Amino acid sequence: MKYRKIPDETIRRLPMYLRAFSLLRTEATETISSRQLAQRLGLNSPQIRKDLSYFGAFGTRGVGYPVEATARRIRQILKLNKVQKAVLIGAGRLGTALVAYPGFSSFNLDIAAVLDNDPKKIGKKIGPIKIENTDRISTLKKRDIRLAILAVPAEAAQKTTENLVKAGIRGILNLSPCHLKPARPVKIIDIDLASQLGILPYYM
Amino acid sequence: MKYRKIPDETIRRLPMYLRAFSLLRTEATETISSRQLAQRLGLNSPQIRKDLSYFGAFGTRGVGYPVEATARRIRQILKLNKVQKAVLIGAGRLGTALVAYPGFSSFNLDIAAVLDNDPKKIGKKIGPIKIENTDRISTLKKRDIRLAILAVPAEAAQKTTENLVKAGIRGILNLSPCHLKPARPVKIIDIDLASQLGILPYYM
Repeated sequence: MKYRKIPDETIRRLPMYLRAFSLLRTEATETISSRQLAQRLGLNSPQIRKDLSYFGAFGTRGVGYPVEATARRIRQILKLNKVQKAVLIGAGRLGTALVAYPGFSSFNLDIAAVLDNDPKKIGKKIGPIKIENTDRISTLKKRDIRLAILAVPAEAAQKTTENLVKAGIRGILNLSPCHLKPARPVKIIDIDLASQLGILPYYM
Repeated sequence: MKYRKIPDETIRRLPMYLRAFSLLRTEATETISSRQLAQRLGLNSPQIRKDLSYFGAFGTRGVGYPVEATARRIRQILKLNKVQKAVLIGAGRLGTALVAYPGFSSFNLDIAAVLDNDPKKIGKKIGPIKIENTDRISTLKKRDIRLAILAVPAEAAQKTTENLVKAGIRGILNLSPCHLKPARPVKIIDIDLASQLGILPYYM
């Protein structure tokens, strides 16, 4: 199935829509209008209609979007209709918290491996997952792990990124407070928690 | 000091600039050009020049931006030239990891209080901070705490937000996977970790 090129901004909102539609399913709601959806999500309804139209999801006037079908379609677009495995690099406090984070599984995301270079941590377990040596990055490809969460100190982030890209990783969620320069194009999403909190005082 | 209205997009990049300028100071670099800065941060230099010009920071052609003065100016704009105290609501794994997160202090951000409604947690310590009952939200104003990090389950997030706003909180970093609807205008920044990771497979 081919789709029009979808803007990054729209893609960024799709998981939010998916979460809303999934919740609506559990509430046994069969359809929802863009206006109702807008109210739930704090967006405006023309925006929602435009976003969803990119992949051919159209609400029926007076009826709305079919909840189950739209949820299925968003999952398909985001390739979350099958389990996507991720590796966590860096078993510090933040990384460890993420392994236990319940939010990933609802998106079919599975943290399947944890790597760290601290000999004191290697071999220990976080929940059901045994921490492996970072040099095991080379095994990720054959384990079908294509996503990485990077939670290492800033000074180790660039080198680790290079190794991840070599190992076939295609997307990185970067929690290290630095700009990564991968040798090959790979999608990187930066989440800099301190920077985000640091923006707030401006608005006080 | 009055400034032109600065766009949100620019404000969002300021902490990144501040971090770069702070690092340059420790490297004893006195000036940096927009081109060098662009290379470090993965941005383009006209963007950087425009961003910095909003608050009257102008590089000298052939010399660049004075590192110390520019860092000082960004701190001032962001109101990070003095310590800004934040409360963490929710002493779960993610919240607890954040208290220990070393990145905040470089921005003068101080997690000064931790609140939770679990009786088993109240009174226990995270590092030097004793966990207090969530009903102590009412004391935040007189303790000069105006920022909050919200790390509670989605179903508790809205009610907690209402209480935070009543208690004079002016900015919220929302880690709960839901859209908050505050009764009074308050700046909210959403960080939805699962959604962010969920975007990556699309780009594989």
